[in-house]
Amino acid sequence: MSNIENFSGSNLDRDLFAVSLDPGASGSLQNQLADALRRMLVAAPGYAGARLPASRTLAAELSVSRTTVQAVYDQMTAEGYVTTRRGSGTFVASDIPHLASPEPAPVATPDRAAPWMTFQVGLPDPTLLPHRLWARHLERAWRAPDPNLLGRVDPFGWAPLREAICNHLAAWRHLTCDPDQVVVTSGASEALDILCRGLLAAGETVAIEDPCWPRVHDSLTAAGLVPHSVRIDADGFDAARIPDQAVAALVTPSRHYPTGRALPLPRRVALLDWAAQRQGLIIEDDYDSEFRYQGHPLPSFAGLDRLQHTLYLGSFSKLVSASLRIGYLVIPKRLIGQVRAYLARVGPRASLVPQPALASFMAGGDFAVHLRRMRRIYARRQAHLLATLAPAHDLLEIRPDTSGMHLCLPLAPPLAARVSDQEIGAQAAEAGLAVGALSAHSVLPDKPQALLLGYAGFDEARLSDGAGRLVQILSDAAAR
Amino acid sequence: MSNIENFSGSNLDRDLFAVSLDPGASGSLQNQLADALRRMLVAAPGYAGARLPASRTLAAELSVSRTTVQAVYDQMTAEGYVTTRRGSGTFVASDIPHLASPEPAPVATPDRAAPWMTFQVGLPDPTLLPHRLWARHLERAWRAPDPNLLGRVDPFGWAPLREAICNHLAAWRHLTCDPDQVVVTSGASEALDILCRGLLAAGETVAIEDPCWPRVHDSLTAAGLVPHSVRIDADGFDAARIPDQAVAALVTPSRHYPTGRALPLPRRVALLDWAAQRQGLIIEDDYDSEFRYQGHPLPSFAGLDRLQHTLYLGSFSKLVSASLRIGYLVIPKRLIGQVRAYLARVGPRASLVPQPALASFMAGGDFAVHLRRMRRIYARRQAHLLATLAPAHDLLEIRPDTSGMHLCLPLAPPLAARVSDQEIGAQAAEAGLAVGALSAHSVLPDKPQALLLGYAGFDEARLSDGAGRLVQILSDAAAR
Repeated sequence: MSNIENFSGSNLDRDLFAVSLDPGASGSLQNQLADALRRMLVAAPGYAGARLPASRTLAAELSVSRTTVQAVYDQMTAEGYVTTRRGSGTFVASDIPHLASPEPAPVATPDRAAPWMTFQVGLPDPTLLPHRLWARHLERAWRAPDPNLLGRVDPFGWAPLREAICNHLAAWRHLTCDPDQVVVTSGASEALDILCRGLLAAGETVAIEDPCWPRVHDSLTAAGLVPHSVRIDADGFDAARIPDQAVAALVTPSRHYPTGRALPLPRRVALLDWAAQRQGLIIEDDYDSEFRYQGHPLPSFAGLDRLQHTLYLGSFSKLVSASLRIGYLVIPKRLIGQVRAYLARVGPRASLVPQPALASFMAGGDFAVHLRRMRRIYARRQAHLLATLAPAHDLLEIRPDTSGMHLCLPLAPPLAARVSDQEIGAQAAEAGLAVGALSAHSVLPDKPQALLLGYAGFDEARLSDGAGRLVQILSDAAAR
Repeated sequence: MSNIENFSGSNLDRDLFAVSLDPGASGSLQNQLADALRRMLVAAPGYAGARLPASRTLAAELSVSRTTVQAVYDQMTAEGYVTTRRGSGTFVASDIPHLASPEPAPVATPDRAAPWMTFQVGLPDPTLLPHRLWARHLERAWRAPDPNLLGRVDPFGWAPLREAICNHLAAWRHLTCDPDQVVVTSGASEALDILCRGLLAAGETVAIEDPCWPRVHDSLTAAGLVPHSVRIDADGFDAARIPDQAVAALVTPSRHYPTGRALPLPRRVALLDWAAQRQGLIIEDDYDSEFRYQGHPLPSFAGLDRLQHTLYLGSFSKLVSASLRIGYLVIPKRLIGQVRAYLARVGPRASLVPQPALASFMAGGDFAVHLRRMRRIYARRQAHLLATLAPAHDLLEIRPDTSGMHLCLPLAPPLAARVSDQEIGAQAAEAGLAVGALSAHSVLPDKPQALLLGYAGFDEARLSDGAGRLVQILSDAAAR
């Protein structure tokens, strides 16, 4: 192990040794060093009384002559910044003249993080992650890391994490796959990039659902692909409406985003038939199916297909934390080489730091415990939101959802005749609520109207408060 | 805090509760559950003697009837997998018949990480990171995380990390900037993407150095930009040779990659003049300037320009660890809005997990200590490599470098007449060495010939061994 942890130098030493001098600059090295030291002492009054490094030491660290350093120390003494005690060295004065620094450091005004607005969709409750446990997994993974973690890690990701993902998918999503088929990514956006830029070619047509997640449209278009929107009907996405020129279809069969409907078995079979007949690629975005509250867990579409034509997209953003920025792709075996070639060209993006911790979190069972706990809590929150929205039963079609993290509630006809979902969304935003509009997820004419209310990330008190304000907004709109 | 850490359920409970059943599948729910339980017990002999959950509990968790579960338990008892003890429950048998599972789980054969080959360029020594200290920073950052970390974190990255980066750049790179100008990325590749897709437009021409990092060429081309290679001369990149149509220049002024030359001041001034006159954008890729062994640290080009026309690209891959996948951009203030708009469209990629740990590692001074320690060690390694290569002084132009992590050594004329750098590289690869070829970094005719030898990531013993093998390869080539 390193002995660095026993380092005993002062912070002043550290700061001084890091000073950067420029022989090509206008000022002499002596003036540059004097300026740097002056700025440092003015900026950090905590250095009062600290001992400066010996001139020989500082000269060696900065690659300047000892004479230069001694001249600066003398000048600083004359200016009152430092004092010299005979035989014991040079010290920072305890009452530094508080001159303005010649070139004031910019004031740091970074954007601090803000809390999420109530009803934001797609958010897990970050406070419910067992942080002490998670921090322990992180600490254990890195205090004496597996030598393989320090070597040439597979661009597809840390092998034990890929194994853990396989086991999770077999248990929770009825999807049997090999770790070779799993690609760890920095999230759904990178997964879409790999798909759009690594597996499809510019100019190709991809059938997508309408409504759908707006970033799908953007990612396809940015990569030069042609998205073809297919309006879903009461049963969801219909493979019969995929245009002839489409080479792929990007769908959410387990739970349509954002309406929440599951694709019935006959439609699934029709989609599989399309893929087999046209050698088409199906991309299954399975974003929150683990949170199923009623009925039997639906198996993944990719599992039904046995990963012959289907590429499966998953993420830990909703299952563990958005801060991870870890997602994954599961790909048919025949595409492994193509994805490897793409990643060799662009490089992997997912940080390795969370990967071994997530692998042990999953392998030890803590992850499954967490998911089941979240499932219970989110089910209660959905029930609570439904109950608090009950007074608006004549304004919204209030219906429970069997799974997921948000509700998609159509405006009732009388209200829909007076106001659009986006108008409600705008009024809600003014009241501090992040109410989504279904029509904003659609590009085709005759956009469906509904409100999207995320409930998973907010406790009962915030949901009650948010629902109260929303009901008021809806009542006001109906009364106008 | 969560109470999840006190969870006392057995692993068998956890596995069973996570079983996924499909009412639409061919087999009955009872058969599906029986299959799942059978597979589970065969796969994990460690469950012998474990108690199964009460049928009521399992039925509730899986949303099936209690009758179904009881029927499965009865069937399993008949098959010898479980035994029932009157009044105390159902237990896994201690001698399970080792039947083949009906659908064998795939054998996991993930790609394990491999060690890096000696002389690989661009690698820090991962074993020298103070891992215990680093793990402690991770643990402290996440055990009771700052509430802001759980909120809506700025897509530009964690604010304290952006502040720490500013302080580092001021101290080490003579670059004064505001945290608002710092964008944390998942590394240099994402930074290039932001640049190519967020700030430049397809069809635009970008002047680049020849030779240069091959991924620069690939990233520009993939984004639809037109790279225009400018062969560097003895003084480096010459702004006078930037073509009229170029809107940007991507350069490595502090230390040309991969030759290691610093751009002299007159050439820097000429480049600044070009940017001012043409309103051109300069992208400074400053990849390892912190490791300077002799002479004065050169200030960054962006610092000289005061970030008027220059965008600065930095990374922690070489300074801390490639496993972080954390880099950054520092951008002129006028481009902040454009980069924010781009990130809103594609989403940030850098994991938040390492960010607060890296921020405290930097702010507390541990980072600067680590850099200085690495600087001392890498200087010794370079000296050692030069000494062990001395026997090949008539085959290679052996010259020290004032900074960096690799040497760029031209073939001496007698050897260059017989063999190319890429032929040497191929022979070295057969001998287990990652010797880079300068000509592979060039696309223009009359490619320069030199060997690239990374030394930072390898201890003296490996360098001696590698140098011995390389000298043998060179001698053999000269003798042919």
